[in-house]
Amino acid sequence: MSIPKLEPLFKARSVAFIGASNDPAKWGFLMIKHIIDGGFRGTIYPVNPRESEILGLKVFSTIANLPETPDLAVIIVPPPAVPAVTTECVSKGIKAGIIITAGFAELGGEGNRLQKEITEIARSGSMIFVGPNCNGVMSPWNSQYIQFPSFFVPPGPVAVIAQSGNVMDSLARQVLIHGFGCSACIATGNEAVLHCEDYLEYLAEDPQTRVILSYIEGFKDGERFLAVAREVSKKKPIVMLKAGKTQAGARAAASHTAALAGSDAVFEAVCKQAGVIRARSLDEMLNIGLGFLRQPLPRGRGLGIVTAGGGWGVLAADACAELGFDVVQLPEETIAALDKILPAWWNRGNPVDLVAGAGVDSIFKAVELVMECPGVEALMFLSLMPAIRMGSFDAPQDKNIREAWGERMTESVALAMDEFNAMADKYNKPVVIATEYMWASHVEQAGITFKLGQHGAVCYHMPGDAARVLDAMVRYSEYIHG
Amino acid sequence: MSIPKLEPLFKARSVAFIGASNDPAKWGFLMIKHIIDGGFRGTIYPVNPRESEILGLKVFSTIANLPETPDLAVIIVPPPAVPAVTTECVSKGIKAGIIITAGFAELGGEGNRLQKEITEIARSGSMIFVGPNCNGVMSPWNSQYIQFPSFFVPPGPVAVIAQSGNVMDSLARQVLIHGFGCSACIATGNEAVLHCEDYLEYLAEDPQTRVILSYIEGFKDGERFLAVAREVSKKKPIVMLKAGKTQAGARAAASHTAALAGSDAVFEAVCKQAGVIRARSLDEMLNIGLGFLRQPLPRGRGLGIVTAGGGWGVLAADACAELGFDVVQLPEETIAALDKILPAWWNRGNPVDLVAGAGVDSIFKAVELVMECPGVEALMFLSLMPAIRMGSFDAPQDKNIREAWGERMTESVALAMDEFNAMADKYNKPVVIATEYMWASHVEQAGITFKLGQHGAVCYHMPGDAARVLDAMVRYSEYIHG
Repeated sequence: MSIPKLEPLFKARSVAFIGASNDPAKWGFLMIKHIIDGGFRGTIYPVNPRESEILGLKVFSTIANLPETPDLAVIIVPPPAVPAVTTECVSKGIKAGIIITAGFAELGGEGNRLQKEITEIARSGSMIFVGPNCNGVMSPWNSQYIQFPSFFVPPGPVAVIAQSGNVMDSLARQVLIHGFGCSACIATGNEAVLHCEDYLEYLAEDPQTRVILSYIEGFKDGERFLAVAREVSKKKPIVMLKAGKTQAGARAAASHTAALAGSDAVFEAVCKQAGVIRARSLDEMLNIGLGFLRQPLPRGRGLGIVTAGGGWGVLAADACAELGFDVVQLPEETIAALDKILPAWWNRGNPVDLVAGAGVDSIFKAVELVMECPGVEALMFLSLMPAIRMGSFDAPQDKNIREAWGERMTESVALAMDEFNAMADKYNKPVVIATEYMWASHVEQAGITFKLGQHGAVCYHMPGDAARVLDAMVRYSEYIHG
Repeated sequence: MSIPKLEPLFKARSVAFIGASNDPAKWGFLMIKHIIDGGFRGTIYPVNPRESEILGLKVFSTIANLPETPDLAVIIVPPPAVPAVTTECVSKGIKAGIIITAGFAELGGEGNRLQKEITEIARSGSMIFVGPNCNGVMSPWNSQYIQFPSFFVPPGPVAVIAQSGNVMDSLARQVLIHGFGCSACIATGNEAVLHCEDYLEYLAEDPQTRVILSYIEGFKDGERFLAVAREVSKKKPIVMLKAGKTQAGARAAASHTAALAGSDAVFEAVCKQAGVIRARSLDEMLNIGLGFLRQPLPRGRGLGIVTAGGGWGVLAADACAELGFDVVQLPEETIAALDKILPAWWNRGNPVDLVAGAGVDSIFKAVELVMECPGVEALMFLSLMPAIRMGSFDAPQDKNIREAWGERMTESVALAMDEFNAMADKYNKPVVIATEYMWASHVEQAGITFKLGQHGAVCYHMPGDAARVLDAMVRYSEYIHG
């Protein structure tokens, strides 16, 4: 698929909704409401033979009656009506569509036939389409939100390609609540015409996209995927989660998107060859994706761990060693230098346990000493609290002053992350952080997570999460640097 | 250790703080501040030879000068002073202590000797103590918060025993932000006198404790642990995370709490024999612990999955099949009954994919039909949204009405969970739920998580999380029911 052909999906100047509705419970209403609420700057054409106005917009009775050929058609009519609507789109000269309607190949039998029919109609008119059986496409940089739930992930660097609408929405919302934004989110559905690899090719050239998260249930064309992914990976990281690993999962995938899950071992081999980072869960996919946005790539598995909590240090050492990291023995001179700045009872090992009593400057100095060690290619810092320039963390109990205190604390966490990230830049080695926010309420914690994203930063929840992000970075680095 | 001997640690009527301070940066100040802020109803005796008043409390120059023998002594003096202080405690007749001070066996050499010395002093006076090298003890039902960070987990059913102060605090805070509370939280430190199994014995008899979470780096007496855990597990579930699995982790554990990590295979075998549920991470430990609070135990691995999101259904089927669950084929009559209430294009399989278009009553009826199937011993429901009695989920964009809408939505989520939990009770089969909150902001999401706990409910973040909770329930059920 040539790349310009996909542009209308993301940069439409006009969108027709076929199956538009005035019933607030129907997708034909909600999808129009959401593209309006999302601030779309182009023209919206609702199409419905029985309505005259929907959400203040003039309604057209047929596609043929539209005053121009729209860049994009969104099709939300019942399955048996889709072939005729697709034919009308082709007649009108529409070149790109999103077929939301379900009830095609995922049902087998008649659904298969119907899907084949619409595919042939579209091909005859050089029309491409997303779906069928999908949840829409979000293109935040174009304020073009064509989707079901009412949330609007802001523009940003993360692209999401998911063969499942709720997985797409889930990932996009997780990006949002982490304070980041998306370049494009595509629910690919049954992939009758456009396949995962078409979107990969497009996003590889998209200047806003810096990392691609992809959820897949099965490939339509494994060889083409391998060829495309291999090239795309050289430009930006692809983090992928494949479902349908077990028999039960494969059965579910077939009835969900008519996907043939295929062998997990083959997928594993394809990922290795193509430089695709494989994630084990949606959470991990997000963690890894956000990690790639800010950190330099590590050149090896030598690791320094600095921890403000002993237990977390032990858990981190375990998690990293299990993933094949070398928690390096610190050289004598580093130990000696650390001796000068840490309290006498520090542990003289790696993980460096900061123990109580070290000031913020000493802590950053200690981090720097570990970063400088020749064998250390990456650093993990655990438990942010003592590295935050906040004075006392003693949370006020008075509700009236607590809110302002919480805001100052949130800002201070973000500033500490700026310091860590500056250190990563200075030494060109990644710094990943896992932390609790001991002093924060549930609402403050949500605010910190969001604020960090606004600073381009992310903290992981647990040492094991941070370890898996580092592991992904090393794997990608090996692919890139050979 | 006899159980009444441990009571002063959790039900003290009077607490002396030796090493009390007026310096707001010192633990000797903060720990007193926190026991006051936590609302302790007993008497607090600060001990310091150079101060007369701390935080409005009269200070005593020595332990000998205290007007009574306190139930509990908290020791926060430098390491070399600990033996003398312990001797004074013994002379005063104090029977229980918490030695916060670090710098003992975890340092080896002189630290080892010092730890042995204080242990012998205490034993000579039949005094028990927590630590040394620990972070404190919280006993929320007694409003007795003896710890460093300024948060106060409310009273509740979850006990935490952790050989790491920051792990204890992290777990307790996670319990808090999930809207639940704790019965007791103990940072056990170097475990010179009191070991993990002493606390287990105590908590087994504690009527407030319904589940025990325990983080351990190494056992002092593996055989006794096995014997104790085997009995305690029959009364309430113990969920355990052991660190020091790898060489790097074991090294870190030794320098953290002087723990000898021992063989991981031995620990695995001990867990199996003792009915201890082993968790792989702190997150998982919390998930499992909260799961045990409300759900009946499953009698087998037959599983029904009902999903409002196709992709999540596929991921759930994978996760459950990998853990050995049987995602059962639904009997013909169940399929026929579901046909009557679900839209025509539902997938007729397990996972039951609700697809768009089913009303709330139909959804609960579908869940009930699956629960009724003879082979189904547990149910997983995915993606709550369509099961919530809320009318439209279309989030208002207007900030002024959004807040009230968010509160109503949060309440509606909690009510939906009440319905699911009533269903679990009716069929005496567990129902676990994983969900996104598509429509919620980051702050609203935090509020929902908290609110659910107030209803005694928990939703998991990802299908894999819910699957591991169910797996833990089955393992525990097998131990209990033989």
